[in-house]
Amino acid sequence: MAVYTHLGAEVLGELIAEFDVGDLTSVKGIAEGISNSNWLVETTGKDGGGARFILTMYEYRIEVKELPFFLSLLDHLSARGCPVPRTIHDRQGQLYRQLNGKAVALIEFLPGVSVSAPTAGQAHAVGRALAQMQLAAGDFASTRANGMGPAEWQRLAKECGSHGLAEIDPGFAELVGRELPAVIAAWPAQLPRGTIHADLFPDNVLMLGDQVTGLIDFYFACTDLFAYDLAVAHAAWCFSNDGRSFDPAISAALIKGYEEVRPLSIAERSALPLLARGACLRFALTRAWDWVNTPADALVTRKDPLAFGRRLEFYADPANAAVFAAA
Amino acid sequence: MAVYTHLGAEVLGELIAEFDVGDLTSVKGIAEGISNSNWLVETTGKDGGGARFILTMYEYRIEVKELPFFLSLLDHLSARGCPVPRTIHDRQGQLYRQLNGKAVALIEFLPGVSVSAPTAGQAHAVGRALAQMQLAAGDFASTRANGMGPAEWQRLAKECGSHGLAEIDPGFAELVGRELPAVIAAWPAQLPRGTIHADLFPDNVLMLGDQVTGLIDFYFACTDLFAYDLAVAHAAWCFSNDGRSFDPAISAALIKGYEEVRPLSIAERSALPLLARGACLRFALTRAWDWVNTPADALVTRKDPLAFGRRLEFYADPANAAVFAAA
Repeated sequence: MAVYTHLGAEVLGELIAEFDVGDLTSVKGIAEGISNSNWLVETTGKDGGGARFILTMYEYRIEVKELPFFLSLLDHLSARGCPVPRTIHDRQGQLYRQLNGKAVALIEFLPGVSVSAPTAGQAHAVGRALAQMQLAAGDFASTRANGMGPAEWQRLAKECGSHGLAEIDPGFAELVGRELPAVIAAWPAQLPRGTIHADLFPDNVLMLGDQVTGLIDFYFACTDLFAYDLAVAHAAWCFSNDGRSFDPAISAALIKGYEEVRPLSIAERSALPLLARGACLRFALTRAWDWVNTPADALVTRKDPLAFGRRLEFYADPANAAVFAAA
Repeated sequence: MAVYTHLGAEVLGELIAEFDVGDLTSVKGIAEGISNSNWLVETTGKDGGGARFILTMYEYRIEVKELPFFLSLLDHLSARGCPVPRTIHDRQGQLYRQLNGKAVALIEFLPGVSVSAPTAGQAHAVGRALAQMQLAAGDFASTRANGMGPAEWQRLAKECGSHGLAEIDPGFAELVGRELPAVIAAWPAQLPRGTIHADLFPDNVLMLGDQVTGLIDFYFACTDLFAYDLAVAHAAWCFSNDGRSFDPAISAALIKGYEEVRPLSIAERSALPLLARGACLRFALTRAWDWVNTPADALVTRKDPLAFGRRLEFYADPANAAVFAAA
């Protein structure tokens, strides 16, 4: 949570005037985004009836040259009926603008809330929405390599060092030392691939009851294995936050929902435990890197790497492979 | 800027159901408030047309026993046509509720933005709105002592110590050492008094163009000298942020707007330089205390005490008394 940049109302008013969305009537910095500043912006709307938007300023991590991929993907998916916020183009048709030397984009506001304790009905809807998104992106022409793939896990582990990982927890260092080479050696590069979200945590889904009203935060979206996207969502949705408790009903509902829209191939299904181990390594290692490199009293709350270490242990246990068996 | 507490959507949904405002449809933590957590909440509204609110959780500084003063003042002023957000009472008629052991209140959302570089027209409107607010509170029955009055300035200065003040800046320590006893000795306790805002910085005013759409953040409101409230607003609006540059046009417009609604008595007018010196001591010393007691790398951005030290020097210079002379 952060708003890194202060923007005065006058500057924001001038910025909003570059879009055909009416006049600025309200702006609140919102406590979302780790590498962006975000504002909830309200305008008079084109018809005077009022309209709301999210204004994002890209502060860290995201390279401006990648913005067209993310922002045009939103447009592509939204145009195909996916519950994804579309990018508001400026009066010159541009996807983003420069402000104070940083890129800013205006994005549609979608209703809905991020659930903390999902129900099976909600997980089912999320599985469906994920598969629909993947299919809707089928004719999206751009591609982007997954910057958070196996090569990056190795780099992160190396940068943390076994000493750094052991300082987090000795058992965690051992687990990563064992799992990382095993998962990478067995990584199934030949499965069906396309555009994936790659970060579909509950935080990145807006819901009203059992209905998905928004898939948001596509800044890790990339071209990679479809089933890996499901594995990420599985690791994100089916456990208690600390990773200690697995919910089989959520798991079954998520996979069922996904398969109602896009059935898994036999190869994909049998790869799911391995893909889920990879997903856990990805989040355990990015969190470990942040942990090692962030002072304990820093502005940003450090997320516990062990929460994904525990999930990794779950998926690595052959006794748990049954959670991915066909219903 | 901060959201200190994480509240899950489910908990928030249950909380909102305690109010007659429709169902929760969106919630965003907003980066406002230093001692509170705040969320911009959206619901279906009573009539299904949608409605927005600010949900505030009181984290620090504010005592729960004082909440009825602040929240019923909002209702009082709003009912009298002041651009002040009214408090939404819950279904039992309560002004605030308890959640996770903390007090929370639901407050009307008002449109408008806080200006960074006010124009004379805007300062004029703010002067009018301040005086209207003071008059509208004339029949407000509750009273509250000013917790940030002269006795508190002395306490803060003592706690900082001349060493602490000198570490900020040697000249600042000298200035406070000279001004604090002089201002307190001459403090004009007999001027007209009533309910005042006591913190009317541009951040606490919402505007659309030259129109004041909201006076907000009444958590320093108290029963004190009317003219002191104007002096606070004068110190807050008429200088560049760093206090180095005074804008006579803003000053004249602010006072003119105020006097169009509530003319100052001769005693009030002649007291204004002294009251403004007091206002500067109040903000210089609360900032100095925060500066001395906040690590440089803490979550909260420290505000520069010298910005009000410079204003204090301005007001203490007899050559500048003319800015308060009758037009």
